[in-house]
Amino acid sequence: MGEDTRGLIVDAARAEFSAVGYDATSLRAVARSAGVDPALVHHYFDGKAALFAAVMDVPVDPGAMVGRILAGPREQVGEGLVRLFLQVWDGAETRHRFVALLRSAVSHEDAAAMLRGFLAREVFGRVVRELDPDAEDGDLRAGLAAGQMIGLAMARYVIALPGVVEATHDELAARVGPVLQAYLTGTRSAEAAG
Amino acid sequence: MGEDTRGLIVDAARAEFSAVGYDATSLRAVARSAGVDPALVHHYFDGKAALFAAVMDVPVDPGAMVGRILAGPREQVGEGLVRLFLQVWDGAETRHRFVALLRSAVSHEDAAAMLRGFLAREVFGRVVRELDPDAEDGDLRAGLAAGQMIGLAMARYVIALPGVVEATHDELAARVGPVLQAYLTGTRSAEAAG
Repeated sequence: MGEDTRGLIVDAARAEFSAVGYDATSLRAVARSAGVDPALVHHYFDGKAALFAAVMDVPVDPGAMVGRILAGPREQVGEGLVRLFLQVWDGAETRHRFVALLRSAVSHEDAAAMLRGFLAREVFGRVVRELDPDAEDGDLRAGLAAGQMIGLAMARYVIALPGVVEATHDELAARVGPVLQAYLTGTRSAEAAG
Repeated sequence: MGEDTRGLIVDAARAEFSAVGYDATSLRAVARSAGVDPALVHHYFDGKAALFAAVMDVPVDPGAMVGRILAGPREQVGEGLVRLFLQVWDGAETRHRFVALLRSAVSHEDAAAMLRGFLAREVFGRVVRELDPDAEDGDLRAGLAAGQMIGLAMARYVIALPGVVEATHDELAARVGPVLQAYLTGTRSAEAAG
């Protein structure tokens, strides 16, 4: 019964995310489409990001993960995100689902739109807003950070580039962490402007 | 007649790249499979990279492009590569073909293997070898650089992340150029080691 209701909500959310994209999807509209009370959606899912993760069949709550990183030292956010992504991705089952997500985003515009809104708003956009609420280039910072992590996933799991496949989490955190930090904080542009 | 021969060679090369990957494909084997003299392959194509570009239906010769970048100042290789990629990709027709290439690499292991060998050896691996012939971490450097550029392409053309889509070539060269340079030269690890 509980699983049925949860499944109904996930199915309705999948249709809604596909139809209008991540940003325009509201939990209220999902509840209406599933024929359940909005309170039930909140009972099963801790917000839109968690619902999206369920739709994408990703067994982690990205919102909670990002919150954990942001609770730590600000100057280690980049490295923390790289380590966290690697931990999540390196699980065989999770990796499989993420690759399926990338495949779908490359082939279908509605899947790309879902991923776009999710990455831009919930994951990297949220980190940029927390680090620097007044950033005028927030979209660019978040987008470059998202692109770097997508590229790392493509290099390690999809195209399987030698060197990147064998690298340890420590090696990747040391090289990619500072890059992500610079993108998120807009360091390069600050230097150029200063 | 010339076009027929050229087409025969491209078809044979496509089959060969798919079957054994980029690295293991020889121009001699392609000639044999096409039923032409090896000299004809060299007549139509300036090496394996140019033949690969023809198979991928990409209207640029990546080998020549990389050579041009390497002929310039060493400390601007990263920025030069970012600008060059953007110039090539931003042509509507070329972009279309590159996105098709990514789509195919995400969905088919043989296409991924082709792209892997090409990126690792002809493009980024070649740049790393030129910049630092004794690098012990050459594969990792080349792979991280390739991943960054694939991620930029995914962010700008496939997922269409806000900020990255609208960014000018100057903005992207200023932020991504130094990152690519650091990956290619292994700067980060040198700092950590020193």
